[in-house]
Amino acid sequence: MGEAKHLAKDSELPDPPKQDVLRVYGMKFSPFTHRLKLVLAAKGVEHETVNINLVSKPSWYLSKNHRGEVPVIEINGNIIRDSIVTSQYVDDAYTGDKLTTTDPMKKAKESVLLLDNEKTIRGFIEAAYHTPDKQARGLMIMKEGLEKIDDFLKSTGSYFICGDKPGLTDYMIWPHLERIRALWPICITQFLFVEAYSRRMLRDSAVKQCQLPNSMHRRFAADCRKKKVNYDMVEEIEES
Amino acid sequence: MGEAKHLAKDSELPDPPKQDVLRVYGMKFSPFTHRLKLVLAAKGVEHETVNINLVSKPSWYLSKNHRGEVPVIEINGNIIRDSIVTSQYVDDAYTGDKLTTTDPMKKAKESVLLLDNEKTIRGFIEAAYHTPDKQARGLMIMKEGLEKIDDFLKSTGSYFICGDKPGLTDYMIWPHLERIRALWPICITQFLFVEAYSRRMLRDSAVKQCQLPNSMHRRFAADCRKKKVNYDMVEEIEES
Repeated sequence: MGEAKHLAKDSELPDPPKQDVLRVYGMKFSPFTHRLKLVLAAKGVEHETVNINLVSKPSWYLSKNHRGEVPVIEINGNIIRDSIVTSQYVDDAYTGDKLTTTDPMKKAKESVLLLDNEKTIRGFIEAAYHTPDKQARGLMIMKEGLEKIDDFLKSTGSYFICGDKPGLTDYMIWPHLERIRALWPICITQFLFVEAYSRRMLRDSAVKQCQLPNSMHRRFAADCRKKKVNYDMVEEIEES
Repeated sequence: MGEAKHLAKDSELPDPPKQDVLRVYGMKFSPFTHRLKLVLAAKGVEHETVNINLVSKPSWYLSKNHRGEVPVIEINGNIIRDSIVTSQYVDDAYTGDKLTTTDPMKKAKESVLLLDNEKTIRGFIEAAYHTPDKQARGLMIMKEGLEKIDDFLKSTGSYFICGDKPGLTDYMIWPHLERIRALWPICITQFLFVEAYSRRMLRDSAVKQCQLPNSMHRRFAADCRKKKVNYDMVEEIEES
């Protein structure tokens, strides 16, 4: 997921990327950066990563992207924000397997699923990153989103959201599922189709390349709740 | 924009559309329905319209689309919601001029503009449809959105957002501009590039086909503020 240290307020503006080099501004634990990284991995696109400390943002980053969010891509003087827009750009601009669904109706249904999935995300953020008193409500909202994914998989009967193999919509949905599996596995196992789908996704090579250990997802969420995040934490090898 | 009467709570479920017939569930004054209607007009796609009374929603409509919003399309047993998703579907599925930008970077920048435009929409809704005390704040937010459109047009130097002629992104942006022109023309004229752009858009044949008179836009907004909308109002011919 990009091992570069996260640059903070006192950091210096990095040199711009070289001609035709794609740079990703990201954050190691961000599910939104994760979306873009999955697409880059699936298509085998070479790129460099500049990680940003989102609590102590560099001022040079805010002048590149006034909203200060990640991911952002920079290439040949162009700056593009948003996880879905940047992921779609990568699929459109680079060779390799096309990840976007071509059948118009199927593509439209995936777009609606992505809109429905905003509930999963909203609920997850509330349950994972905020104070414990919001957890119950967050989990409830999150489950309404998961139910939509379950219904979608059930109605299409296909292995992945995009069909026989993971596509763009799968990679937009996956990052939150990986985190939900780590934090509340029971929320996944209670949805039969989502559970089977998750197990298939875990065997995908892009998913494997970008995966973080469950223990790190859990630690990041716990640190967020305590408002004390170490963006550069390293994996602890647990002794058994 | 579809002259069909707006069906209310007591209405009966209409028969499903015939094979391959595209049905739009809409509302005559909705800027979101307007987006889809512009795309249908630009591509010359035959369709039928079922208008929905959004204050007194038919229960059969809620079972088709539990969110109860418009536009929704129905075709061959499929139901798709959301103005952008349905518009994209129409461009993807029907012959006629392709309205979607093909250059990946240009397409990505248009997608970011559409995200930035959410400010125009949010500000407009607050200023036009809510109580007068919210108007000042709404207008301020709206102008931040308009500034993004102005910057975009200035930086590309092209006649339309999509280039030499209006494309999908133009038709997604236009409905709110048409309404802002009707309600607060000075908000448009203070942005040089948006003003010149609006005048060009008004000459587009799809824009002309779907346009409502300024007086109706003003009356709809005033009725919303009074929470007393007549969806089936007809144009009053003003005597001079």
